[in-house]
Amino acid sequence: MLEQLKQQVLEANLALPQHHLVTFTWGNVSAIDRQQGLVVIKPSGVEYDEMGIDDMVVVELTSGKVVEGNKKPSSDTATHLALYQRFDGIGGIVHTHSRHATIWSQAGLDLPAWGTTHADYFYGSIPCTRLMTEREIAGQYEQATGDVIIETFVNRGIDPLQVPAVLVNSHGPFAWGKSAADAVHNAVVLEECAYMGIFARQLMPGLRDMQPSLLDKHYLRKHGANAYYGQH
Amino acid sequence: MLEQLKQQVLEANLALPQHHLVTFTWGNVSAIDRQQGLVVIKPSGVEYDEMGIDDMVVVELTSGKVVEGNKKPSSDTATHLALYQRFDGIGGIVHTHSRHATIWSQAGLDLPAWGTTHADYFYGSIPCTRLMTEREIAGQYEQATGDVIIETFVNRGIDPLQVPAVLVNSHGPFAWGKSAADAVHNAVVLEECAYMGIFARQLMPGLRDMQPSLLDKHYLRKHGANAYYGQH
Amino acid sequence: MLEQLKQQVLEANLALPQHHLVTFTWGNVSAIDRQQGLVVIKPSGVEYDEMGIDDMVVVELTSGKVVEGNKKPSSDTATHLALYQRFDGIGGIVHTHSRHATIWSQAGLDLPAWGTTHADYFYGSIPCTRLMTEREIAGQYEQATGDVIIETFVNRGIDPLQVPAVLVNSHGPFAWGKSAADAVHNAVVLEECAYMGIFARQLMPGLRDMQPSLLDKHYLRKHGANAYYGQH
Amino acid sequence: MLEQLKQQVLEANLALPQHHLVTFTWGNVSAIDRQQGLVVIKPSGVEYDEMGIDDMVVVELTSGKVVEGNKKPSSDTATHLALYQRFDGIGGIVHTHSRHATIWSQAGLDLPAWGTTHADYFYGSIPCTRLMTEREIAGQYEQATGDVIIETFVNRGIDPLQVPAVLVNSHGPFAWGKSAADAVHNAVVLEECAYMGIFARQLMPGLRDMQPSLLDKHYLRKHGANAYYGQH
Repeated sequence: MLEQLKQQVLEANLALPQHHLVTFTWGNVSAIDRQQGLVVIKPSGVEYDEMGIDDMVVVELTSGKVVEGNKKPSSDTATHLALYQRFDGIGGIVHTHSRHATIWSQAGLDLPAWGTTHADYFYGSIPCTRLMTEREIAGQYEQATGDVIIETFVNRGIDPLQVPAVLVNSHGPFAWGKSAADAVHNAVVLEECAYMGIFARQLMPGLRDMQPSLLDKHYLRKHGANAYYGQH
Repeated sequence: MLEQLKQQVLEANLALPQHHLVTFTWGNVSAIDRQQGLVVIKPSGVEYDEMGIDDMVVVELTSGKVVEGNKKPSSDTATHLALYQRFDGIGGIVHTHSRHATIWSQAGLDLPAWGTTHADYFYGSIPCTRLMTEREIAGQYEQATGDVIIETFVNRGIDPLQVPAVLVNSHGPFAWGKSAADAVHNAVVLEECAYMGIFARQLMPGLRDMQPSLLDKHYLRKHGANAYYGQH
Repeated sequence: MLEQLKQQVLEANLALPQHHLVTFTWGNVSAIDRQQGLVVIKPSGVEYDEMGIDDMVVVELTSGKVVEGNKKPSSDTATHLALYQRFDGIGGIVHTHSRHATIWSQAGLDLPAWGTTHADYFYGSIPCTRLMTEREIAGQYEQATGDVIIETFVNRGIDPLQVPAVLVNSHGPFAWGKSAADAVHNAVVLEECAYMGIFARQLMPGLRDMQPSLLDKHYLRKHGANAYYGQH
Repeated sequence: MLEQLKQQVLEANLALPQHHLVTFTWGNVSAIDRQQGLVVIKPSGVEYDEMGIDDMVVVELTSGKVVEGNKKPSSDTATHLALYQRFDGIGGIVHTHSRHATIWSQAGLDLPAWGTTHADYFYGSIPCTRLMTEREIAGQYEQATGDVIIETFVNRGIDPLQVPAVLVNSHGPFAWGKSAADAVHNAVVLEECAYMGIFARQLMPGLRDMQPSLLDKHYLRKHGANAYYGQH
């Protein structure tokens, strides 16, 4: 069942330590089969070097019920499902505690678009969510984490396909993309921009966002209808 | 004698350079056999790549007397023993000069709980000890180092099982856990949080502690009676 | 055609990830055959570990027309060509988004000459270009990027052979040299100086440029007519 | 001639990239045979991965004349010789541009003793030299670099055997020790302390030197007449 998707999710999970995005088991990747309404996700708390394709867990998109797999799914599964339910166009999601993106999460700040590295992948600031309420934390916490991410994009009018990442306040980043691999790719870029942002801001306190026209140019030369980057 | 425990202590010591927690011989791990009242600890000043199981030293918990091994035990042995004597529930201890935890020690500051990475392992700030007195330094210094750690937890009402690490002022971190391996695991997390804390504080001077309810949620979902993280 | 130059360009491109100067495909190296008026450059958006000599693209110096190769040349080709056209003495060019040089680009600041490491390779500050205009960004952007680099050197009276690198504002560094390998060498040094500059400035806000006499001494003992460094 | 010493110097030079202390050829190690008054030193500008025992150069302590070897000695040879001539007790010297020690050099600041990591090896601050004069730079520059190091230790009453390293202003560190290997060991520790010092100072501006009694305790438990660290 979903062998190909499970393989992709496994590989995307294994890519996390290779890209130095995770310590121990602190990260998880999932991907969705939209036609069947099923999500494949990493099991909870399993070491990356012991993880195999049969450890991947298949859950129903709407109910969260496990339909295949003999392990518990990631404790963050409900967050993934909330995002898949609301963000139609995404095919894969990754959550990490990668050092520099997490630093911005802990500081509770948006990561501004401060250069073309950022603009090549993200069409504007990476938003940081608001603090969660006592009620949200005490209730269905992982579901509420997804809800507050969605609220952030909706309230601020950000298109999650154009800004495929978020900084969860006091927590860490989620990134997404067309597939599990694409989500990991975006998580790597986010980490890179988060690193550079810390020190660009140190060099130039009060640094303003990059020029909108330059943001347009770089984002659109890779992602717009008239993209001309790469071999396409 | 205690072959299994010696093997665990050896492996935990060898894990230190793998996790980039030590330079040269600057670190030591021990573990205790509570029933026999014996502690296995790394020898003093031996290179990690030359260290074997027979280099491990066995000392008595109460007297500190070497009961097996042909090498001198770590110069920090008396600190380890003081902690084992007072902190009943711990099974392993590690001391390192890992870069970022040591930076907080040198600055003489507690490491606040600033995010869920921290909350997943430590139920509140990692305390920094007070400066030692001239008398403590000139006397049984390593024993006194243990005493000042204990004083810190007692005076501030911190449970060492819930906050399994300390920053010794002007020196560096100690971490502990159920076993030698668990102690090293906590030392890795401490280092990670120490790194992120430096830059979260740079981005947001005056950053406040994370919400107590979020600290509870993350610590208790992994460590409380109703923990639901991992395959348990 | 130009097999030797293509091999050099390939090797110089492959050196970028080895020197930790690039993430994914974010970098490109070219070299020029001045006699034939032809430039060899990396293809656009191809992974480094899949890149072979036949992927190298040959373009005409003046027209930018592809004269050999079945892939599209780097999207930054027009910038490379502009620099080759104007800076007669250079044989190779490299563009990266290396972390610390890019941080200075994002901050929009020149990287001052703050020590002999810098002075051994760069005869003065590495300039940061001005922001580009809306017209430049909307027009032939990559060509304009080259033009603004050239303008920076001309207007400020900097000799590109003595300061073989630039920080493009809000973007990242370009470096050059006698050959593709030499350009990469200079990009490594730039990254090293950019790293050290961030923290030297943190330790000593308002840090002044190094003494001109010391800059002379170090630059000229390696590059002047009376150079005495190395086995020459 | 001096085969054993040449082997030691070669190995110490090769240890520099292993400890991440050098980029390209930016570093050099030497050692002295005091009885014969001869110094073995790395050749100038040779790659570490091409360096063999026959590349080592033997020079006379007092004259600097090459007495064996078919390569030019390091361009910093005169600095090494000045230090050997004045600091009787040292057997090996290393010069690097290691990132964090160099940052302190560029900032023109002493590296204070801020913790036991430092105190285990250096009995007080690592001094930064004064700026050199125009005359010193224009004259026998490398010799003058040695002279200004010596002046720093003499004028400030620092024992070079107890503080086996210096930060040359606007340049980078030199470290020394009983042997070439010991000098490299000290250079690694210096780099570690330099790293930690940057961020300890960021966390706690105005951080004061560590307690003199703690400095004594740690330095003397490893280096004093009653040392008890290690297997001695």
